[in-house]
Amino acid sequence: MNLWILSEGVNYELKMTHKDLKENLKEVHQLKITNETNIVELIDSLKNSGFNAKRLALACEIYNEMVNDKDCIKFFGLAGALVPAGMQKILHDFIKEGYIDVLVTTGANLTHDLAEALGYHHLQGDQIDAKGFNDSDLYKSEMNRIYDVLMPNKVYEGIEDFVSNLKIPDNEMTVSSFLQFLGNQLPNNSESILNICAKKDIPIFCPAFTDSGLALQIGFNHQQVNLNHFKDMLKMVDLAWDAKKAGVCFIGGGVPKNYIMQSLQFCPTSASYAIQITMDRPESGGLSGATLKEAISWGKVNEKAKYSTVISDATVALPLIFWFLKESKKKN
Amino acid sequence: MNLWILSEGVNYELKMTHKDLKENLKEVHQLKITNETNIVELIDSLKNSGFNAKRLALACEIYNEMVNDKDCIKFFGLAGALVPAGMQKILHDFIKEGYIDVLVTTGANLTHDLAEALGYHHLQGDQIDAKGFNDSDLYKSEMNRIYDVLMPNKVYEGIEDFVSNLKIPDNEMTVSSFLQFLGNQLPNNSESILNICAKKDIPIFCPAFTDSGLALQIGFNHQQVNLNHFKDMLKMVDLAWDAKKAGVCFIGGGVPKNYIMQSLQFCPTSASYAIQITMDRPESGGLSGATLKEAISWGKVNEKAKYSTVISDATVALPLIFWFLKESKKKN
Amino acid sequence: MNLWILSEGVNYELKMTHKDLKENLKEVHQLKITNETNIVELIDSLKNSGFNAKRLALACEIYNEMVNDKDCIKFFGLAGALVPAGMQKILHDFIKEGYIDVLVTTGANLTHDLAEALGYHHLQGDQIDAKGFNDSDLYKSEMNRIYDVLMPNKVYEGIEDFVSNLKIPDNEMTVSSFLQFLGNQLPNNSESILNICAKKDIPIFCPAFTDSGLALQIGFNHQQVNLNHFKDMLKMVDLAWDAKKAGVCFIGGGVPKNYIMQSLQFCPTSASYAIQITMDRPESGGLSGATLKEAISWGKVNEKAKYSTVISDATVALPLIFWFLKESKKKN
Amino acid sequence: MNLWILSEGVNYELKMTHKDLKENLKEVHQLKITNETNIVELIDSLKNSGFNAKRLALACEIYNEMVNDKDCIKFFGLAGALVPAGMQKILHDFIKEGYIDVLVTTGANLTHDLAEALGYHHLQGDQIDAKGFNDSDLYKSEMNRIYDVLMPNKVYEGIEDFVSNLKIPDNEMTVSSFLQFLGNQLPNNSESILNICAKKDIPIFCPAFTDSGLALQIGFNHQQVNLNHFKDMLKMVDLAWDAKKAGVCFIGGGVPKNYIMQSLQFCPTSASYAIQITMDRPESGGLSGATLKEAISWGKVNEKAKYSTVISDATVALPLIFWFLKESKKKN
Repeated sequence: MNLWILSEGVNYELKMTHKDLKENLKEVHQLKITNETNIVELIDSLKNSGFNAKRLALACEIYNEMVNDKDCIKFFGLAGALVPAGMQKILHDFIKEGYIDVLVTTGANLTHDLAEALGYHHLQGDQIDAKGFNDSDLYKSEMNRIYDVLMPNKVYEGIEDFVSNLKIPDNEMTVSSFLQFLGNQLPNNSESILNICAKKDIPIFCPAFTDSGLALQIGFNHQQVNLNHFKDMLKMVDLAWDAKKAGVCFIGGGVPKNYIMQSLQFCPTSASYAIQITMDRPESGGLSGATLKEAISWGKVNEKAKYSTVISDATVALPLIFWFLKESKKKN
Repeated sequence: MNLWILSEGVNYELKMTHKDLKENLKEVHQLKITNETNIVELIDSLKNSGFNAKRLALACEIYNEMVNDKDCIKFFGLAGALVPAGMQKILHDFIKEGYIDVLVTTGANLTHDLAEALGYHHLQGDQIDAKGFNDSDLYKSEMNRIYDVLMPNKVYEGIEDFVSNLKIPDNEMTVSSFLQFLGNQLPNNSESILNICAKKDIPIFCPAFTDSGLALQIGFNHQQVNLNHFKDMLKMVDLAWDAKKAGVCFIGGGVPKNYIMQSLQFCPTSASYAIQITMDRPESGGLSGATLKEAISWGKVNEKAKYSTVISDATVALPLIFWFLKESKKKN
Repeated sequence: MNLWILSEGVNYELKMTHKDLKENLKEVHQLKITNETNIVELIDSLKNSGFNAKRLALACEIYNEMVNDKDCIKFFGLAGALVPAGMQKILHDFIKEGYIDVLVTTGANLTHDLAEALGYHHLQGDQIDAKGFNDSDLYKSEMNRIYDVLMPNKVYEGIEDFVSNLKIPDNEMTVSSFLQFLGNQLPNNSESILNICAKKDIPIFCPAFTDSGLALQIGFNHQQVNLNHFKDMLKMVDLAWDAKKAGVCFIGGGVPKNYIMQSLQFCPTSASYAIQITMDRPESGGLSGATLKEAISWGKVNEKAKYSTVISDATVALPLIFWFLKESKKKN
Repeated sequence: MNLWILSEGVNYELKMTHKDLKENLKEVHQLKITNETNIVELIDSLKNSGFNAKRLALACEIYNEMVNDKDCIKFFGLAGALVPAGMQKILHDFIKEGYIDVLVTTGANLTHDLAEALGYHHLQGDQIDAKGFNDSDLYKSEMNRIYDVLMPNKVYEGIEDFVSNLKIPDNEMTVSSFLQFLGNQLPNNSESILNICAKKDIPIFCPAFTDSGLALQIGFNHQQVNLNHFKDMLKMVDLAWDAKKAGVCFIGGGVPKNYIMQSLQFCPTSASYAIQITMDRPESGGLSGATLKEAISWGKVNEKAKYSTVISDATVALPLIFWFLKESKKKN
């Protein structure tokens, strides 16, 4: 007889044909926020809830495990352009705290990181519309819009000045070596992603580097440059091959996700930990929205891996994950 | 001459044909999380970022203003089924703390709230798939799935027991009066939404009440019942009409959003504050994803209103908003 | 030995541990559009493709099977407001051609259907923004915006004139009876949904009827009205109970989807055919985006049912499905 | 006096403070599908509807104008992996019919195109789940899943055989030259994208080429290769610079969209025609979902451009657009 106590005072027999099913079920906890709530408690509590709150809590827990697993190489795929939205220092601190071992990102993030490192700033643009300005007005004012953020054209001029004066050591160096060289040219107090990666010897891969404002300036000013993308591709496979254990965290999908995934595909070690924070969904078949479960079929993610996909804007989830990791560390 | 200091040491002339544009621009702040970060600081900092992080921060700020505005009637539209995902106590505490004056919700939320109040629980179901069970197995085990949460069929039996014993005072009472009567039958220690609303005399409107498991049990067991929906509709219009000032917060869209909006449409006071937390988008024309700006054309939202739409799962945003409001209150 | 011919000239041994898997695999056909392509061929071809094209083709095929299955009662859940987007005659013709047996819809669709039936029109509004008008301008011009469609406030006055003159036969009639009465008042040449349903004796259920401009006008002008929602709820369960076989098609989610689903849940016959056209997704736990597979756990959809979810704007998918059904019929 | 005839018999005075607004408004047409409906009529009719149906119709119309504008260079950005979903021949025919002048795409599309050209096929995988197989089973069977499509690992072996035997003419040739070389190695009867582009001298740019299975095989087998990405970037800017007029069509976003956009940004001619078919949305700030209006601020799209964004799975929209273009051509 299957008698199942669902809560104090409410016992009843459950028609439970599958014994295993029964044994794996836990109650949903109704979350309570009190005067003493802190980020670690909040996330721990959400772990026993449902929907994306639970997925976010699981992502935090999995990331924390990755960080504490000495054997795990943490691959971090960063799509989009998060620096314009104020995430530069969070990303800088992910690297500084040792939460990232290999960074794969877009040229956009590097271009905007460079702009901030050189002393330029992005501007808040959400009042534009309310004030009666439209995109034609912005064009005339040489203000480039990224949803609710603006980047003045002047920033490109600053980047061009900087880039044109670079003494590139080797026209055929790999993209990742070039990015390390670049990071070392930046002021050490800048909280720049490029700079902290250079200082900590964290490789940055940027497979679509020529798809960026930064690469355009390099191309315009250093016409002999032919940075090597293929050596980076093979180096990346080597990093995946040599990893005792692999963990992946994808912020958005795009090229960074695929590049990490393809490196793991042919390796003995598929990912043991996998996190993805995205607004993309699987139904239209693109890799950006593909489930982490699908990656098991490819051998990119291990069938025994711990994984969690959170459907969330990265600007909301990233600070929370970082805050959780930092506070969890403090407690240990 | 337009000289614009973007940051220390980087001065340059900006081709800014629109003086007003220039004067309204603020820098994006790069967020920093430290050992001293608390929820109020985090949100305040995100207010100067971009994308949904900024929208969430604005939503928190606007909600806080609503709470502190004595003249403002706070209409809260709650779609979906958030109790199964662990949000019952958060919602209970929104009401307890005085953050909601009028609640419009779905029958689903009320049904699940009643289940928890009667001592039943929802179950975490995210391991189902990993253990090799599918929806046919769940059906045989009489487990109803709501994404990653399960509700045993037995819960319906408990609700039926409870409902069949109700002495409904008036077959033609309004739905909102019935819900108040119902709330008063529930144990006071239950942290139930129905119960706290009854105790605090907060009206609950449920325009699609017969679209719920709870209403089905009422219909099966009390065949003479014809709860009045029209009087509620007019009462709701009266509440909107009488409000000195109106504020709205929509969790998801659906009927709760439209019902609040239609009440405001014909009133002298359209909403002065408006928040919506949703995963729906405007492009396919449904009201659930419609922008708050569109509501200005209808006279539902005031053209001078403060408003913010956050594209986020409510299970992530709601606890953060509540936490922010609670901590902000403590500081005052 | 597993020798598998993937295409002419390319034979190879497939490491296929699961015999069943192998036997169920068909090649993806690369679609070809020629001078002779018609809608039936296009859809048939897409049935062997992937992603949402395939889902749409399956939805067409399943709907066609429903139509040809004499035992099947076809429940049609219509959310949103599709009449403003030009879908009134398509929906009218779905009913006229016998593709719908029971309609469950929103008050919005009925309100807009009534407006068109009375000779009013919705207006194309996509040039508004380009011409420099915003929602405040629209408000001043008494133009209500629905994404890129406008409805002049004047329409409400026309509806009020019509409604105030209605001689409602019974203040406590069911909503569905009232809607039949209403349909019969409309001109027979109107291609109105209300009118064709009345003429063909197709019941219309509208569980959230008081959440509509139409109901507001009824409430304002006929204060004694208390249309019965509970009897409709039970009548709907009876319809589901009495169906030899059931098929469901959901355009969007919301109340119409849930109302049909809850009626099927407690019946001996769960749905044998199920289609849903939606932009909503499952990850945030709402019923609107819930998979049809999930509905199997509830006993709403049969575990042997044929089902397909298409992630598509209904304004794109609906005309294609109708066109396919109509042309398929012609061929038989 | 503003008297506005909305339809026969219904005249009324419109409170229309903005004369321009009034003059720009047209009625929404209620679509009718008859026995004589063809794709051109359907699309023409949808042009006067609303929501995404209208956007799709506008996209068709704009594409047709581009095709008929002799001065217009048509840039086509193709993200994702559409060949596995059966779109290879549609894309092939877009090129064959002269609808594309410059193609920018992902390595994924090229890898899958090559596979099909070599005689391999993708497999329909939507029955996998229903048959009780999961991603671990697929992994053991060496079947890689792309949502509901499968690609056997064996395909990689075929690609490797082919690639290892290539005599690459120049290790430092540009990616686009290499892709032209590659296309010329493929059978002319293959309906391959690579082959038709080579034959018609349509350049293919692939900025993230090393993010692909094809590039991995090249890297593994031809270790001296350092295909030049920078020359392609500059060549692309030249193409944009030299265009009398530019038109863009984006299928999905990602690198292809950004690469075309960055090339137009610094040119005298921004895009005069712009179409985007995507499931991505603007609210989380990524370029993939960014509106075409935003691109005006960057000078990527002309403020007088005709543009349309369709929120749709490309597998649904692409065949319809192609069908429309082909039938429209026939009529001329």
